[in-house]
Amino acid sequence: MRVRLPAGVAGRGHGRLLLSAARRGAWEGMLRMLDIAAEPRQRGRRSGGRAGNRTRAGTAAIHQMPWTMPQNRDAPVEPLDAEGVERVHNGAMRILEEIGILFLNDEALGVLKQAGCDVEMESKRVRMDRAFVMEQVKKAPSRFEIVPRNPERTVQVGGDTMLFVNVSSPPNAMDLDRGRRVGDRESFRDFLKLTQYFNCIHLAGGYPVEPVDIHASVRHLDAIHDKLTLTDKVVHAYSLGTARVEDAIEMVRIAGGLSHEEFDATPRMYTNINSSSPLKHDWPMLDGAMRLARRGQPVIVTPFTLSGAMAPVTIAGAVTQQTAEALCAIALLQCVRPGTPVVYGSFTSNVDMKSGAPAFGTPEYMRATQISGQMARYYGLPLRASNACAANAPDAQAAWESAFSLWACVTAKANIVYHSAGWLEGGLTASYEKFVIDCETLQQVMHYMRPVPVTEDDIAVEAIREVGPRGHFFGAEHTQARYETAFYSPFLSDWRNYESWSGSGAVETPQRANAIWKAILAEYEPPPLDPGIAEELRDFVERRKREGGAPTDF
Amino acid sequence: MRVRLPAGVAGRGHGRLLLSAARRGAWEGMLRMLDIAAEPRQRGRRSGGRAGNRTRAGTAAIHQMPWTMPQNRDAPVEPLDAEGVERVHNGAMRILEEIGILFLNDEALGVLKQAGCDVEMESKRVRMDRAFVMEQVKKAPSRFEIVPRNPERTVQVGGDTMLFVNVSSPPNAMDLDRGRRVGDRESFRDFLKLTQYFNCIHLAGGYPVEPVDIHASVRHLDAIHDKLTLTDKVVHAYSLGTARVEDAIEMVRIAGGLSHEEFDATPRMYTNINSSSPLKHDWPMLDGAMRLARRGQPVIVTPFTLSGAMAPVTIAGAVTQQTAEALCAIALLQCVRPGTPVVYGSFTSNVDMKSGAPAFGTPEYMRATQISGQMARYYGLPLRASNACAANAPDAQAAWESAFSLWACVTAKANIVYHSAGWLEGGLTASYEKFVIDCETLQQVMHYMRPVPVTEDDIAVEAIREVGPRGHFFGAEHTQARYETAFYSPFLSDWRNYESWSGSGAVETPQRANAIWKAILAEYEPPPLDPGIAEELRDFVERRKREGGAPTDF
Repeated sequence: MRVRLPAGVAGRGHGRLLLSAARRGAWEGMLRMLDIAAEPRQRGRRSGGRAGNRTRAGTAAIHQMPWTMPQNRDAPVEPLDAEGVERVHNGAMRILEEIGILFLNDEALGVLKQAGCDVEMESKRVRMDRAFVMEQVKKAPSRFEIVPRNPERTVQVGGDTMLFVNVSSPPNAMDLDRGRRVGDRESFRDFLKLTQYFNCIHLAGGYPVEPVDIHASVRHLDAIHDKLTLTDKVVHAYSLGTARVEDAIEMVRIAGGLSHEEFDATPRMYTNINSSSPLKHDWPMLDGAMRLARRGQPVIVTPFTLSGAMAPVTIAGAVTQQTAEALCAIALLQCVRPGTPVVYGSFTSNVDMKSGAPAFGTPEYMRATQISGQMARYYGLPLRASNACAANAPDAQAAWESAFSLWACVTAKANIVYHSAGWLEGGLTASYEKFVIDCETLQQVMHYMRPVPVTEDDIAVEAIREVGPRGHFFGAEHTQARYETAFYSPFLSDWRNYESWSGSGAVETPQRANAIWKAILAEYEPPPLDPGIAEELRDFVERRKREGGAPTDF
Repeated sequence: MRVRLPAGVAGRGHGRLLLSAARRGAWEGMLRMLDIAAEPRQRGRRSGGRAGNRTRAGTAAIHQMPWTMPQNRDAPVEPLDAEGVERVHNGAMRILEEIGILFLNDEALGVLKQAGCDVEMESKRVRMDRAFVMEQVKKAPSRFEIVPRNPERTVQVGGDTMLFVNVSSPPNAMDLDRGRRVGDRESFRDFLKLTQYFNCIHLAGGYPVEPVDIHASVRHLDAIHDKLTLTDKVVHAYSLGTARVEDAIEMVRIAGGLSHEEFDATPRMYTNINSSSPLKHDWPMLDGAMRLARRGQPVIVTPFTLSGAMAPVTIAGAVTQQTAEALCAIALLQCVRPGTPVVYGSFTSNVDMKSGAPAFGTPEYMRATQISGQMARYYGLPLRASNACAANAPDAQAAWESAFSLWACVTAKANIVYHSAGWLEGGLTASYEKFVIDCETLQQVMHYMRPVPVTEDDIAVEAIREVGPRGHFFGAEHTQARYETAFYSPFLSDWRNYESWSGSGAVETPQRANAIWKAILAEYEPPPLDPGIAEELRDFVERRKREGGAPTDF
């Protein structure tokens, strides 16, 4: 059967137009004839429109993918050959042996001195030889689990598994209605609800936006309480002083209904520490990391090695420095508690040398991330990277920069992708619309990672024989048996033809995302929590507030 | 040296904010102090602003990368194992052996019958066995050159080389000022000027938009004349009837100042043919392909196998059918002239089974493209794929769909990327702004493909030693010697901080792209052409118009 063209198209008299026309109008007509498009999805400007689109997933706002941890089985992209990897390794070892790193934490200095490192107590500079470093790094597991209060949201870190974390730590929130503003508890809670809602977000990482309207002394108490009640996914504690870390540990323990022994027996939470590049680990980060390590909890070590600023202007040099800064902290944690689960974190990107602005999703970011993947595999450690961009609005630049970052993470085989959803403006803003946009692309990556089956049935020679050269596959039995689940079905993309799209208001992507997050927040329900545990958590927060919370003299 | 924070930031009292603040304001301050950001680039709403930004490249509109053919040295991503590839191959061979393909062209039927194929003259169905197919396919070169009228724009097809082609064949043009409209000669010429201007566009492919205001009988004459005078890159001829193809051949020969023998001796142009899937090659496509083959000119064979519509709903099945349809045409062309340069074209994507709309940049598109890469390598043929999207506006959806398509092309090791710049709306519209946006991402891919050097100097241990734990790299000699060329410098991205960006009008990406294409068109100069050749071309066009051009009764 020949594709039938709508009136007027064929008359334009150009064979190629057959193809163009077939791409849209004709197919829709054919599908309507075949009655397989009887229920086209409602899309568009009516913000309530999606709410009526109930799906099998049982949610109204969107039909999303189920909770699953994608397995990235593809071979990684490796910019360096084996000799190049050895050179980066050798450079990192020379930094640790010859130059040394400042550990601005006396307890850490004591541990490292005890372990035989060359420690200058006054300058706090530590040198360690490569045999020591490698011996310690070997003690770290190549993969581990983290079990949150809802064990169904347990995550595996390492191997082929790829996990996505919400945007973490922006001081500002932004949406199309209210514009950009300093983060507050309301926006903080909104982003936690989005984090909980989307199955493609595996961990509730750092604060998705800073709740600046809560006093700094008690902010962590309210914030972690919100996290543990609005989500049931793995949570994170900032390493920002002893009291905050200890409070976070205690609250995670209470929320899990765990004894201290049960808490210590298994990873239940994690922290992420940044070196203060170049060549320096600060007191609070080391303090928090060691506290978590002692209790068997994982630590991600992410140097802040922006090439051209805090690290060499060469990508190889920046990753070399990143490696040195990460490995020396990992070695410390293995001395504190052998076998502490750790992650090698990469945040290496470049700055715009003309303005000093940091850049993300650049060619340099991609290559640095992929080389970081090579180094992580060299050391047998899981890799963390980020879905970052520098754009100020959820527009085309934001989308391509984030897509480039995301494909860098995929091709690097990153195990944990920080800032997966919501990051804008170099991390200074959490965007509601960008969160929704990112979740759409994360789902697509998750679908991409499913194996492509190639059974005889998939090769489909019999279906092709049945259809023959004068038919089409819309009505084929092979299609009918599979069409409902054959392809990834996006919740945000608008694939209607131009006439339908413009006729219903020419709504662009951010506006569609705006309608979606509102529908999600409107239908959000908190995950169940045992009332006794809820009360114990509240009591803990109130007591610690009465005690004055955490010191703020930092 | 510690990063110094602007007043007010430290006062917010949160250690993490140090990092956030450092990302932007503090760095800019540092750079200003260091005087290495003395000339920040002008960006923003003033459409004339860029015109003042003259660069070493000698152009005013933007500072673009020089002409170069990127070498994609990364290992490809391969979704199938060797057995999977064999299954696709076996399926394709079974289609050709058992089911057959319609060749709606008596001359082609004659050639194939002569070559020993099983030809049903009445139904025009041809069956060919795998030994024959593979014997013919082996005659095709795995790489070849095409030499346009400007030999400096010669392209290598195959191997690690990746070439970008402008958007081809949309019936509509669109820009932010004039909206969407049927293509005309003015927009056609505009897109040719953009094609010529951007060094990252290697070939002037199909019509970047259909010049519908030129009568179909003579349209090809004016259009190819415009192509050969407004650009000096490799041009393409549509296989849309004998007269058009022969006219195009003759005009390319004249423009190159070539004798017929010289023309025939080397590839000078090419055509792209689509099968009329399923299982059918139409008369004009076969006629044009055979005419080019006889004169030693390359043919890209691109089946139109959209999964779920003209091909099986399974990706493996669709690529299997694509392979059968491509290889049988390639076998024909090798019979016509052994050694004809050919390209295995992949256009396999999926349709939205809910609406019938075609989709691009989907997970299915990515995997189909990568599997197509595996098949192309299996047969020793260059691969063509596309930078496509389904979005109706140059917004976030367009950017992520195109980025996903583009990274599919990279990871598949596509040699020719069709529709690289300007494609919107499933190919129904050529967008001026999208053209500029795409060229920005193409340049980034080109930069990404440059090897990452790892000499001792790049590893930079001495620079790290010099800077030490209390310094920074902005002022380091290692940085100063490299900062001007260290990183890719985008022409479209806005990396300014939010305050600067919003203070100058919060201009989003499409508006910035709008200013850029206007500046480019304003400064466009046609490439030099010998006056005698120009006259000969004009004479040819006038004579053929007097003769009535090409028949339009198709």
